[in-house]
Amino acid sequence: MIYAEIISIGDELLIGQVVNTNASWMAAELNKNGIAVVQVTAIGDQQQSIRNAIDEALGRTHIVLITGGLGPTKDDITKMALAAYFDSKIVFHQPTFEHIEKLFGVRNYPLTDVNRIQAEVPEKCIPLFNTHGTAPGMWFEKDGKVVVSMPGVPFEMKTLVVDEVIPRMKEKFALGSIYHKTIMTHGVGESALAERISEWESALPIGIKLAYLPQPGIVRLRLSVSGDQLENLQTAVNNQCLKLGKLIPDLIFAYDDRLMEEVVGDYLKKTGQTLAVAESCTGGYLSHLITTIPGSSAYFNGSVVSYTNAAKTEMLGVPEEIIVSHGAVSQAVVEAMALGALMRFSTDYALAVSGIAGPDGGTPEKPVGTVWIALATMDGVVSKLFHYGEHRGRNIRRSALSALNMLRIKLKEKLPNDPQSC
Amino acid sequence: MIYAEIISIGDELLIGQVVNTNASWMAAELNKNGIAVVQVTAIGDQQQSIRNAIDEALGRTHIVLITGGLGPTKDDITKMALAAYFDSKIVFHQPTFEHIEKLFGVRNYPLTDVNRIQAEVPEKCIPLFNTHGTAPGMWFEKDGKVVVSMPGVPFEMKTLVVDEVIPRMKEKFALGSIYHKTIMTHGVGESALAERISEWESALPIGIKLAYLPQPGIVRLRLSVSGDQLENLQTAVNNQCLKLGKLIPDLIFAYDDRLMEEVVGDYLKKTGQTLAVAESCTGGYLSHLITTIPGSSAYFNGSVVSYTNAAKTEMLGVPEEIIVSHGAVSQAVVEAMALGALMRFSTDYALAVSGIAGPDGGTPEKPVGTVWIALATMDGVVSKLFHYGEHRGRNIRRSALSALNMLRIKLKEKLPNDPQSC
Repeated sequence: MIYAEIISIGDELLIGQVVNTNASWMAAELNKNGIAVVQVTAIGDQQQSIRNAIDEALGRTHIVLITGGLGPTKDDITKMALAAYFDSKIVFHQPTFEHIEKLFGVRNYPLTDVNRIQAEVPEKCIPLFNTHGTAPGMWFEKDGKVVVSMPGVPFEMKTLVVDEVIPRMKEKFALGSIYHKTIMTHGVGESALAERISEWESALPIGIKLAYLPQPGIVRLRLSVSGDQLENLQTAVNNQCLKLGKLIPDLIFAYDDRLMEEVVGDYLKKTGQTLAVAESCTGGYLSHLITTIPGSSAYFNGSVVSYTNAAKTEMLGVPEEIIVSHGAVSQAVVEAMALGALMRFSTDYALAVSGIAGPDGGTPEKPVGTVWIALATMDGVVSKLFHYGEHRGRNIRRSALSALNMLRIKLKEKLPNDPQSC
Repeated sequence: MIYAEIISIGDELLIGQVVNTNASWMAAELNKNGIAVVQVTAIGDQQQSIRNAIDEALGRTHIVLITGGLGPTKDDITKMALAAYFDSKIVFHQPTFEHIEKLFGVRNYPLTDVNRIQAEVPEKCIPLFNTHGTAPGMWFEKDGKVVVSMPGVPFEMKTLVVDEVIPRMKEKFALGSIYHKTIMTHGVGESALAERISEWESALPIGIKLAYLPQPGIVRLRLSVSGDQLENLQTAVNNQCLKLGKLIPDLIFAYDDRLMEEVVGDYLKKTGQTLAVAESCTGGYLSHLITTIPGSSAYFNGSVVSYTNAAKTEMLGVPEEIIVSHGAVSQAVVEAMALGALMRFSTDYALAVSGIAGPDGGTPEKPVGTVWIALATMDGVVSKLFHYGEHRGRNIRRSALSALNMLRIKLKEKLPNDPQSC
């Protein structure tokens, strides 16, 4: 087994201003590739702390991944600390400079002296191109062990890990095989899900591990197995995955970390149909989810966020008397919203959400967390009532996911040869 | 200065299943009380790792706070590791047992043998009552230093820290003060910001530290200082903060981690005015940001996400011929969108965004990242052209922030006694 440690550098981690999500992302990524993480260390921007942390980590493991402290400003000293640690002078790296020039050229920003300094790296490292930023990654080797330094900006780090670090690790080390299969579920919480699949879970073959990874609105199930013969491992896991698919077909919306909005988008592309949205309590978040997917303009026509009754009437044609008699959060209104969006945006499908996200606005009859969701097509409109919790952000997220899931189930009927399977 | 380290124990932290929010919460709490955290270490449930981590931490600091590994199951071994480390036998602690009995009585659960074992603690520790769970905290002292072990369940840990740990720390150590001030900026990147404030930064008094904390679209500047006399520290930092406020008034939108959407919402509440939004490339994200703020329905009327040309015409009244002659991403169209939203939602302000978020849709004249933003009021409409990068998600985020910032600057004119200041 190949072992790794993660060192996160930055004073902001030590005063509690930033939560170390980088480390958990990297740990998951390393594990997925057969590298076991034995320690995560967060330290401040100080030369001595950085040197000590690297020293201790190299004493325990084969690989040390470092993030943070590579910015162009004075408080960022990781590069100097690494140069000192590896006893290497700093040199100007022309290809890195050209990469930065190109990056700035595209963005029409003037290049400053500070940017030029970012192209200086310790001579003893292999600079790794940073597609999204000006600070390069740095790959050091010493006594058969590897130290990699990357920027702390999450998406710069993530691209470097996936595009540069993992492929080089695979070349350098004989990584054992770890095979993971992630099953994405929506609809019930962790404990309810555990009850529904408890028999299947108890009967899992020895060696196949199951982990529950809950997020607001989604519980991911991860099956993992490690060993030498990748093909056998895959077959064993995939068999269990198929069994699960038959057990909870209503809850599974995708596999392998695909997003709900991606699955729905794929279905719409396949059927060549279009979608519009009318949002009240989700306030634009449902449209945002849909439009995070590149190419969504092929099937998404648009949305109305109607945060007032007047907007529901003016922009979606919801009759005022329905709102007065039933209230804005009601089956009658949410269905009228969906039909309004369908007509005005001339689409095949329209989703509408109306609810009480909180923290205020609840009543004894309609407490915070009460949400109506409707789906309209040319054949008519269907709707469903949901009861979520008291947390505004989670209510928004769960409502948007439930709306997309309603559409997903409808679209799946049209595509009997579901491409989303184990 | 009194120094501390945090050791987080649990395999789930090393496979990326759980993000270490406990550590950041504890770090913030310790800092607030004048204790500087110098390292956070996450390790697995292994005796040797735990002993090594404690040993190393005690070599560097006065205080070590440990969480995790105190559950009743076999994989939790922190208590045994601590007993071994402090060379202490395990004894049954009657008051802790009575506390557990009481807790179970309240909850109407039957007490099991496993629960009885939780009342056993190393003889050399002071057990700390856990109000919310069965695993007690444990306070050890050695050579004037302190090691505290707590459960990893966040709300059990938090109550223990606030009710037991911090008061005891205050009794044992003469705690100094730490003071932080965070300045939130939007508009330029980290390096351009560093250039604009370089003279001010170089002239910072010794003892005041500056950190740059960049996020997409936002760079936070954090000033921090530590010492004995809190009032003097605050004055020194606030003076620097005021100087900075005069240097880059266009870039600073808030202080102390307040959000752009919060600041804009506050201004609108104060002026009693309303806002609507017309979005193209931001796809609902701008509306989503605005509506994440509880109570936003007081000033936000709604939004149209017009993802097609037909939607721009039908829902916002943008004349078709303008779209044909200027293109959807143009000054003429974004201004017509803003005016359309202003009229249809009957608001005091309307923001509109039209751009190319990417990854596709760019042309040589209008590459990906080209974004027009307009602000309409009854007095007319103004607009501005922005050039962002190639990353869809970041372009969406930066566009939404720039739109809100445009409105913020406009609203600020109306409120000469700006409540957002140092």
